[in-house]
Amino acid sequence: MVRETILLEGQIINNQSLNQMLDAVLEMGGDFKIEHLEIGKRRDDPSRARIQILASDKAMLSRILEKVSKQGATVLRPEEVRVAIADRDGVFPEDFYSTTNLETEIFHRGRWIAVKSIEMDCGIRYDEARGEPECIPIIRAKKGDRIVVGREGIRVIPAQRQTRKEIFSFMSSAVSSEKPKKLLISQIAKRMRELRDLRGSIVFVCGPAIIHTGASESLCALIRNGYVHVLLAGNALATHDIEAALFGTSLGISLEDGVAMEGGHRNHLRAINAIRRAGSIKRAVEQGLLTRGVMYTCVVRNVPVVLAGSIRDDGPMPEVITDVMEAQDAMRREARGADMVLMIATMLHSIAVGNVLPARVQSICVDINHAVVTKLVDRGSFQAIGIVTDAESFVRELAYELCPESELEEIRE
Amino acid sequence: MVRETILLEGQIINNQSLNQMLDAVLEMGGDFKIEHLEIGKRRDDPSRARIQILASDKAMLSRILEKVSKQGATVLRPEEVRVAIADRDGVFPEDFYSTTNLETEIFHRGRWIAVKSIEMDCGIRYDEARGEPECIPIIRAKKGDRIVVGREGIRVIPAQRQTRKEIFSFMSSAVSSEKPKKLLISQIAKRMRELRDLRGSIVFVCGPAIIHTGASESLCALIRNGYVHVLLAGNALATHDIEAALFGTSLGISLEDGVAMEGGHRNHLRAINAIRRAGSIKRAVEQGLLTRGVMYTCVVRNVPVVLAGSIRDDGPMPEVITDVMEAQDAMRREARGADMVLMIATMLHSIAVGNVLPARVQSICVDINHAVVTKLVDRGSFQAIGIVTDAESFVRELAYELCPESELEEIRE
Amino acid sequence: MVRETILLEGQIINNQSLNQMLDAVLEMGGDFKIEHLEIGKRRDDPSRARIQILASDKAMLSRILEKVSKQGATVLRPEEVRVAIADRDGVFPEDFYSTTNLETEIFHRGRWIAVKSIEMDCGIRYDEARGEPECIPIIRAKKGDRIVVGREGIRVIPAQRQTRKEIFSFMSSAVSSEKPKKLLISQIAKRMRELRDLRGSIVFVCGPAIIHTGASESLCALIRNGYVHVLLAGNALATHDIEAALFGTSLGISLEDGVAMEGGHRNHLRAINAIRRAGSIKRAVEQGLLTRGVMYTCVVRNVPVVLAGSIRDDGPMPEVITDVMEAQDAMRREARGADMVLMIATMLHSIAVGNVLPARVQSICVDINHAVVTKLVDRGSFQAIGIVTDAESFVRELAYELCPESELEEIRE
Amino acid sequence: MVRETILLEGQIINNQSLNQMLDAVLEMGGDFKIEHLEIGKRRDDPSRARIQILASDKAMLSRILEKVSKQGATVLRPEEVRVAIADRDGVFPEDFYSTTNLETEIFHRGRWIAVKSIEMDCGIRYDEARGEPECIPIIRAKKGDRIVVGREGIRVIPAQRQTRKEIFSFMSSAVSSEKPKKLLISQIAKRMRELRDLRGSIVFVCGPAIIHTGASESLCALIRNGYVHVLLAGNALATHDIEAALFGTSLGISLEDGVAMEGGHRNHLRAINAIRRAGSIKRAVEQGLLTRGVMYTCVVRNVPVVLAGSIRDDGPMPEVITDVMEAQDAMRREARGADMVLMIATMLHSIAVGNVLPARVQSICVDINHAVVTKLVDRGSFQAIGIVTDAESFVRELAYELCPESELEEIRE
Repeated sequence: MVRETILLEGQIINNQSLNQMLDAVLEMGGDFKIEHLEIGKRRDDPSRARIQILASDKAMLSRILEKVSKQGATVLRPEEVRVAIADRDGVFPEDFYSTTNLETEIFHRGRWIAVKSIEMDCGIRYDEARGEPECIPIIRAKKGDRIVVGREGIRVIPAQRQTRKEIFSFMSSAVSSEKPKKLLISQIAKRMRELRDLRGSIVFVCGPAIIHTGASESLCALIRNGYVHVLLAGNALATHDIEAALFGTSLGISLEDGVAMEGGHRNHLRAINAIRRAGSIKRAVEQGLLTRGVMYTCVVRNVPVVLAGSIRDDGPMPEVITDVMEAQDAMRREARGADMVLMIATMLHSIAVGNVLPARVQSICVDINHAVVTKLVDRGSFQAIGIVTDAESFVRELAYELCPESELEEIRE
Repeated sequence: MVRETILLEGQIINNQSLNQMLDAVLEMGGDFKIEHLEIGKRRDDPSRARIQILASDKAMLSRILEKVSKQGATVLRPEEVRVAIADRDGVFPEDFYSTTNLETEIFHRGRWIAVKSIEMDCGIRYDEARGEPECIPIIRAKKGDRIVVGREGIRVIPAQRQTRKEIFSFMSSAVSSEKPKKLLISQIAKRMRELRDLRGSIVFVCGPAIIHTGASESLCALIRNGYVHVLLAGNALATHDIEAALFGTSLGISLEDGVAMEGGHRNHLRAINAIRRAGSIKRAVEQGLLTRGVMYTCVVRNVPVVLAGSIRDDGPMPEVITDVMEAQDAMRREARGADMVLMIATMLHSIAVGNVLPARVQSICVDINHAVVTKLVDRGSFQAIGIVTDAESFVRELAYELCPESELEEIRE
Repeated sequence: MVRETILLEGQIINNQSLNQMLDAVLEMGGDFKIEHLEIGKRRDDPSRARIQILASDKAMLSRILEKVSKQGATVLRPEEVRVAIADRDGVFPEDFYSTTNLETEIFHRGRWIAVKSIEMDCGIRYDEARGEPECIPIIRAKKGDRIVVGREGIRVIPAQRQTRKEIFSFMSSAVSSEKPKKLLISQIAKRMRELRDLRGSIVFVCGPAIIHTGASESLCALIRNGYVHVLLAGNALATHDIEAALFGTSLGISLEDGVAMEGGHRNHLRAINAIRRAGSIKRAVEQGLLTRGVMYTCVVRNVPVVLAGSIRDDGPMPEVITDVMEAQDAMRREARGADMVLMIATMLHSIAVGNVLPARVQSICVDINHAVVTKLVDRGSFQAIGIVTDAESFVRELAYELCPESELEEIRE
Repeated sequence: MVRETILLEGQIINNQSLNQMLDAVLEMGGDFKIEHLEIGKRRDDPSRARIQILASDKAMLSRILEKVSKQGATVLRPEEVRVAIADRDGVFPEDFYSTTNLETEIFHRGRWIAVKSIEMDCGIRYDEARGEPECIPIIRAKKGDRIVVGREGIRVIPAQRQTRKEIFSFMSSAVSSEKPKKLLISQIAKRMRELRDLRGSIVFVCGPAIIHTGASESLCALIRNGYVHVLLAGNALATHDIEAALFGTSLGISLEDGVAMEGGHRNHLRAINAIRRAGSIKRAVEQGLLTRGVMYTCVVRNVPVVLAGSIRDDGPMPEVITDVMEAQDAMRREARGADMVLMIATMLHSIAVGNVLPARVQSICVDINHAVVTKLVDRGSFQAIGIVTDAESFVRELAYELCPESELEEIRE
């Protein structure tokens, strides 16, 4: 029989971590003894537990400690973190530690060091000589990199369940088309206003339905008023936006009167060809060719845009990053500092962005398809709010809440 | 070999009826010869075909003639319609003619007579002595009724496919969440204004999501401004509306701040009990107990409401018709004169109302669930437009379009 | 400041009840002091807490005690339950206690007495002279009935969260189309076999898609082999089943070759008329008119069937109970003793049956529409497992697992 | 007033092309006179129309002729096709002709020449000196290429609507979860057997749900029995397949018992790392590391696999083509010769493959989500059959129909 003592602190009863941890210990074949338990008085007060973990051998103990440390427990006398050297590019050493999207620390030389740029399903590179431990995807490993392996000396800081007073939290796991959404949208708008005033960062991740459904004007108003700090999208959004700007159609359907325009089915290709001829979207704006729409507004307002490629793309537009690994890196760079992410009507881009975000970022997923919203919200542990509603009405409501009356005329008409 | 000559007139190429009819003849084992075909010049101009139908025996010919006459063909020298006498209550004679929801005529004593109150899946009662032929559901047949049987002497007037210029038609079969809906809503609003001004009849069929999603104020504004002439709904809508009026919650969730209210889960039962104690919704209004909401507004504006019962009902509210056959009759009475029907967020009531409507009524089906909209639009042949969107934003947009600014404050806030 | 001491016992950490209760106390304005907490060692071991509740006045204390007693806490010295007399039929007294679907007891003359036939959203009738307290829907209250009011002397036994080893529990909250369903179906089948052998009761709640999708043979095999003890359905299932038995079509589509049959659209009406003529489904079987299908098999195997009416019904079939309140009572009678309920491809009937079931009954909800399954599983607190899959393949898999090879030929062919 | 005479031949009434064409002429402001119309006797017989088109000026006439020639009409004395020279790489000349996915011919030196490799939303490159006209995507245009422009001398061969006897056609536009699917699957299986025997080509396009839902064994049996000639998929399918082969889990969920395995969440990354270490999936098979599953079976059976990259990929696996334009070219190469394409549980790959397929290829789209199936079937004009069902049960049924009993044991167990 081997044993180790762990500490668990925080909202461990509220957020069920104590419960889950004890379950896990038993399921893995171990046993436990609660040495001390102190329950927080108020909902926001931390609780604290000291628990002795028992296992039949060292291997089992090690597996249990890995598990519970992922759940936020600290081993009383932590062991030193271990690293191994990558023996070729793009491959981690055997037994590499695979990350979650929660804040993570490693124990080295008697202190806990935070891992930089945490993201799920990556490894941790740590070369003491070169500074902080850092989260990297498998493809970015280089021969000779020192990669964290095993389970010793690693701890994960559990996400705090938010209390009721805090923004958003009241619907935090709610995915339903039968809730009073206007209210929720008001709260999101309020938080966006705060973030704008605090110079926080709001990232929009949008699918082409933004354009088809006629939400373009509303999104432009949000951009002009400083509520969109990064736009992540794909070739389709750019194409239909520019098709609308140049020809007044989206997928050949007139946005004026909803009627399929004669020859309109080829407008999206004409739009792509025109921009390819200009050299880039940016140059099309400079040349006076592109004078309205979402892409135009981002260019003139200096909002960074990442257009990530997909196998269903026509064209594509010149700015589209056709290599998906490079596109991921571009999304990482732009999304990493986000305080809030709004994912609207795009499953592919939403999952991709969700993959590279730390859990602490507030995420809102909007789609008209219930199954899509559930799928997005279920992924990873990030604090996502799912809203089953129409993309167009969602964006328009945000514009109503956040933009001055003078800009809303065009949207309301 | 037996033969008969039929005539087919109208937009028979546009609406594929010629095509379908020729297919049908061949599939049933018959053959045809097109004696004359005259194609309409303009889209709206009728075409005209005279076709000889050939069959190997009289039975086959009869089956074919039945089929093609359902599709709108007229046999050149029509036979007399036949009736048989119902030998017990609630049962039709063998070989009864089962109706479509298209305008139908029977041939009797040398002239075509229109069938009253046409509705799908019914029979035709015709007692010359007592007047017009009339469509009746099976359960309403009485012993001794004369019911149309066989296929002779019956013709169906095919629905005209609408031309593009006509209202709504541009999206007439479109069910998609990716269309510019604002535009479509504007057209619906325009048509509603016309109907109001012409004293036409607009029927709303609504599910309880109207209340949960916060669309109640918008719907009340539409009622107050004369855009709702009949409301068909169920116990759940009335219950949650009155729950909201009395306690500020819907299914226990506060409509003010979206938070579940302490004890709120039983508010809907309390609402039901309070109204049952008052005797009826109407009396609750008279007693000053009920002072706001959809039910209240219908009472004070004299808008007829049919609340049809369902096996999932709690209570129910006193006005709910718990016998489903009686509820159908009540819906028939109120819906029959409709010019336009808006079916919002309720599959059960929408199908039920669709069942009793003639095909000529313009119907709009709104639901956030794509499968529901497809299912509704696919049923029967009525001119339904399907819109995949949020019930709340749909009703609110209608209110924005149709109600004076002074009434919109509360909705916008 | 007033106070009261409560006890909470059971899997109160596992199932979050301690957590939720403390939250509730604070949210309602009260405060608490944990006097004693003893955590169960094993997952299945009970924990035990003694907690002092503090409130600023007696009214608040009473509200808090009502709330926590609904969550399973026992007040140390319980007060006597209170009753009031119904002053008219179909109406409860003011301040009536509204039930949950969890086992409930009332405290009377020094002992806790279990409430019979517990069901959510009802009241409790208790006349000591006449025996046990009993759960009744509002509509069944009679003038003079003694109905439980207030919150004193009532306690609710929380549902035990099942441990992993127990059947089904591993997916207990899982609603996903992306899980390995075959495995789950095997476990359901295993449980059905146990229940059959133990003479337990399995209730099927089925929608008409059972027939349209071709699952009829599989369901009949399950009935013949003793796996269906009650069938709850509506007119549509009976109609399309009998249409298939008499004419080989379902909604006019041939089940042999999937092609729409000539004249087939009226087969469902002909089926209804034929059965109405026979007098009832049972008599149609006796008369040799109906010789196959689900309804036939239920008749010859003496499986009770409740056909509940709906406003979308054609006909209806003679056995259909057209009054929805009577239909609810019939469902109650048949479903009450259920050990397991399978709800397949019907939202309306599933919700209706879910409403009358106690929480302890194992329920499985199957639908191809994700939103429907989520909605069903979210309702009430019953132990429902949601499966997003095809009704036909689900029923067929059950038949493969449970029926002898000799009966599967027809299904496999 | 200018005029031109066109011919239209084929099933122009059946497939509505005459109807649509006359509509189009009027909508574009033109007029027409039917000079001759000969209706085919039998459903399969061609009809033939000679129509005079009138327009107010040459530009309008040209637009109309372009439109109607896309719909299959032939101008009686066709003009010579026109080309222009691309002035830079990756850009078409102004006024380029944008293709449909229907067979297309250009008129040059007095004869009609078929365009090679037709695909929607591309251009046509034609250098007489270098041979046949060829369809190319915009990105593949090279400076100096001769690209077809304008509308003269181009004709499109309309897809023939299939007659009822032909395989599949009976449900050709049917998207419903309420149809008897077993029958349809039998017909698909029959057609697959024919194609295998005729050495035709069957392409599978699969999403990772194939693995999660447990359909892997069934798919392997189909591969082993010669029913899968190309597999188009993404990194996720390969990853979860290999995760299942190496660790018995898919996304960390055990495929044996459905329970989340301890540490299982990182199995997919371990699988990727292991294959990256081996160098490729093929080499992992050669090294004896990978011994089962879909990827393994494709390697040992020499079934070509294209793994197309996506921004949501972890890893990726070495065979994944991370540049989306290169991935498209790879899909084109493999899919072009297809006789039948089955698209199962993947919207992204299905749309991408649909984009590069000519309309004549029989396509079957299977998904459990109704909206996805509708979206896929609505795209382009290809002959797609949509089936709303479970991926696992669909693939398993195919295996039951097509594979010898001896291979089904494992699937049935």
